[in-house]
Amino acid sequence: MSSRKPALNLSTINPSIINVHYAVRGELALKADQYVHALADKTEEAKSLPFEHVVTANIGNPQQKGLNQVPLTYWRQVISLLEYPDLMNEHLEIAKKIYPEDTIARAKKLYEEIGSVGAYTHSKGVLAIRKRVAKFIEERDGYPSDPESIYLTAGASAGVSSILSIALKKGEGCLIPIPQYPLYTATLAYLDAAPLPYYLQESADWSMDHETLLKAVSEAKTAGTPVKALVIINPGNPTGACLSKEAMEAVVTLCYEESIVLLADEVYQTNIFDPEHRPFHSFKKILKGMKKEIADTVELVSFHSISKGVSGECGRRGGYFECVNIADDVMEQIYKMASVSLCPPVSGQVGVDLMVSPPKKEDASYATWFKETSLIQDNLKSRSNLMAEHFNKMDGISCNPAEGAMYLFPRIHMPQKAIEEAKKRGKEADVMYALDLLDATGICAVAGSGFGQEPGTYHIRVTALCPETAEFVGRFEQFHKDFMAKYA
Amino acid sequence: MSSRKPALNLSTINPSIINVHYAVRGELALKADQYVHALADKTEEAKSLPFEHVVTANIGNPQQKGLNQVPLTYWRQVISLLEYPDLMNEHLEIAKKIYPEDTIARAKKLYEEIGSVGAYTHSKGVLAIRKRVAKFIEERDGYPSDPESIYLTAGASAGVSSILSIALKKGEGCLIPIPQYPLYTATLAYLDAAPLPYYLQESADWSMDHETLLKAVSEAKTAGTPVKALVIINPGNPTGACLSKEAMEAVVTLCYEESIVLLADEVYQTNIFDPEHRPFHSFKKILKGMKKEIADTVELVSFHSISKGVSGECGRRGGYFECVNIADDVMEQIYKMASVSLCPPVSGQVGVDLMVSPPKKEDASYATWFKETSLIQDNLKSRSNLMAEHFNKMDGISCNPAEGAMYLFPRIHMPQKAIEEAKKRGKEADVMYALDLLDATGICAVAGSGFGQEPGTYHIRVTALCPETAEFVGRFEQFHKDFMAKYA
Repeated sequence: MSSRKPALNLSTINPSIINVHYAVRGELALKADQYVHALADKTEEAKSLPFEHVVTANIGNPQQKGLNQVPLTYWRQVISLLEYPDLMNEHLEIAKKIYPEDTIARAKKLYEEIGSVGAYTHSKGVLAIRKRVAKFIEERDGYPSDPESIYLTAGASAGVSSILSIALKKGEGCLIPIPQYPLYTATLAYLDAAPLPYYLQESADWSMDHETLLKAVSEAKTAGTPVKALVIINPGNPTGACLSKEAMEAVVTLCYEESIVLLADEVYQTNIFDPEHRPFHSFKKILKGMKKEIADTVELVSFHSISKGVSGECGRRGGYFECVNIADDVMEQIYKMASVSLCPPVSGQVGVDLMVSPPKKEDASYATWFKETSLIQDNLKSRSNLMAEHFNKMDGISCNPAEGAMYLFPRIHMPQKAIEEAKKRGKEADVMYALDLLDATGICAVAGSGFGQEPGTYHIRVTALCPETAEFVGRFEQFHKDFMAKYA
Repeated sequence: MSSRKPALNLSTINPSIINVHYAVRGELALKADQYVHALADKTEEAKSLPFEHVVTANIGNPQQKGLNQVPLTYWRQVISLLEYPDLMNEHLEIAKKIYPEDTIARAKKLYEEIGSVGAYTHSKGVLAIRKRVAKFIEERDGYPSDPESIYLTAGASAGVSSILSIALKKGEGCLIPIPQYPLYTATLAYLDAAPLPYYLQESADWSMDHETLLKAVSEAKTAGTPVKALVIINPGNPTGACLSKEAMEAVVTLCYEESIVLLADEVYQTNIFDPEHRPFHSFKKILKGMKKEIADTVELVSFHSISKGVSGECGRRGGYFECVNIADDVMEQIYKMASVSLCPPVSGQVGVDLMVSPPKKEDASYATWFKETSLIQDNLKSRSNLMAEHFNKMDGISCNPAEGAMYLFPRIHMPQKAIEEAKKRGKEADVMYALDLLDATGICAVAGSGFGQEPGTYHIRVTALCPETAEFVGRFEQFHKDFMAKYA
């Protein structure tokens, strides 16, 4: 036996770590992983499974194996040229047989600006790319954007966690929607900051109710918790709801009146299903359209990503945030913290460039790019609608159709007996449901408790990325029927 | 005038952020940036500058513009194929005219294992890659390595900062070498943990003195600071020193006796100038070679990276850490925190694969790979030696030659008058020296105070990556002569 006490155990490590929860890749994902490996290796366990493959509907990961969203050809052509610049030099004549002219021109320009993609860049990201991000924002919103206020990041997550860690003192409050993407609660737990939940209205298509928000603010005040920041995810994850202009203006006014910094997670801004009736408005645009006193003072950080949208390039880890009305000396602190992590992945930076500056109509690549992106948009929308329709036909499930993003968040009207059984197993009822669903069908979907929900309600988040929607729905339906019968 | 109080200012943001310092990309780097832009844009300011280009000797960034370390052909060929898999399918016949057979085979295998490089991977990184990392470690050290104890990361920095944030409670101590790479002090400041400096012996080639280390431990104990972790950078940054086996064993014994977790920053393990006399030993190997009671208990995390070595692929953000003797429940916490950031950049993961599993002698690419990597090694070594030699010829400078890594850390014997002048300017004398050096020559090198140094000594860190070593040395020498004359 050793006489040495380990330096690290659960009681000696940083206690803030223990409080972090992140359901999207937790027990369920680990179990799904096991099944994937068992099926791949054709183990004994695999033979006893009642399904032949795992359907990973738990992560918004469009290019994942089995989901088959094909990467955009234009993106991959430009990036492969940058990765191996000899294709543009000594092998140019051969490369021309494969690569459309505009991809070579684009890659050459990027190469001049960046140099080797294997070198560190400026900690904020390549200036030329930040300039094009600023142009994209200006064209989207109609208001000026400063490249120096834009930071390229390793996906939106890295930006969110960096900004939260700078903005919040221990014990301060951050308003977060419920349901929410668990990055927020995880980061706040790590920072010992207080998540201040405001519930979204399931009965009204997951819309944001201003009274509920005000109530959350006043409750925090009563409890003596300073309200420092407000997170909004628009379009919503997991809800799929798009905010109305009016709701957004009310939020900005609140941030004005209460001196709250607004953190706008706008990573799904391109995934909009009905742009005529429910268009995406950026918070920057709403903010800058309000009266000068508000437009010039309300502090906003807006996050965007290449992981979603039509690119779905999650593995590249690319994104950006834009700071609006943030004080200069705070901007210096943001820069300092960015510099400690050296620079965002260059491949992700290039992705941001391709996202904000896609091929133009006159370019040789345009037709293919348009065809590919349209197909992705159409698939997402039709799968989402079809799934919502089917969920609503199942007894004991109700589901708001999504207006955007890539998820559905159907409500399971949980039988009392299932709730009791879950309690016996030491689990939330929706966690039990999700684990049983996986065991029975191979479908991996995350329980609503991982995102938060009104007490006494139970949900499940599924992605709308699965190509075999009909098969998916069929398996889900059979399981659900059996589950409801079992606990009737 | 606005009546709104900003939510974010220096007194309202997270105070731990304010305490973070990171000199490598601070004032000096910003100024150098300005000069680069002025020279590129041929501004009025540029005309008045006494140099025509900026020499960025402040960051170990081998593929940076102006340094011209060419990326390894093998790496870029494999990666470009993975980025645009059509090259291996419909365009295969054309691609074969450019790509050696083994690069296509390698890319095909990786594609089967990973799928699209645009998809999220497992939060620990692709299992097949972790298996090859384990094999690399086993072959290096002669002891088993478990792929489940290996995490792929976004460069070593991300791994270091993650492990420090898990291991340390607020107020606990972490032994760090002085001089050190400032990532450590920056992260500790952010965590409100206490850096416990142990000084490396400049008079003995920057070696580690065990008495000094023991003194640091006992001082911490006297001060009531629990000593939780010990950081070692080997080969050293910025010192270039390689640890001896004996020094390493003494460190491991200390970690055994005092229940300290050992964090081994081994990112320069391939940059060894005289492997016969000063070979690299990994801490894993040393640890596992000690008596069972120690080998089976001392907790070690070892970090490696694709940013240095012969690849120098910093921009890709790739690296890994291996955990040894870490308790299972702590490993679960490490996994949970990794999952919150989703996954390391896939391009960096592929880089790790290429680093740990280079082409074999029988492969078509081997000759080129060998030629390219040998040149990089030879250049680094000869530049480092040449620069040290020249530094030692300059009056008022002394410099330990480096045994590895990619820096020199010459000591400037600072004239009293310069120290007084610096005080007037509100700066450290070596910071003044570095800024004046930049203004006079365009050479950007970081002051020793950014890394820490014995009080009353002054240093400067320069990279040994600059191809025009003679020109570099000439400009430096002229500046130094003038500086010493000015303050004589």
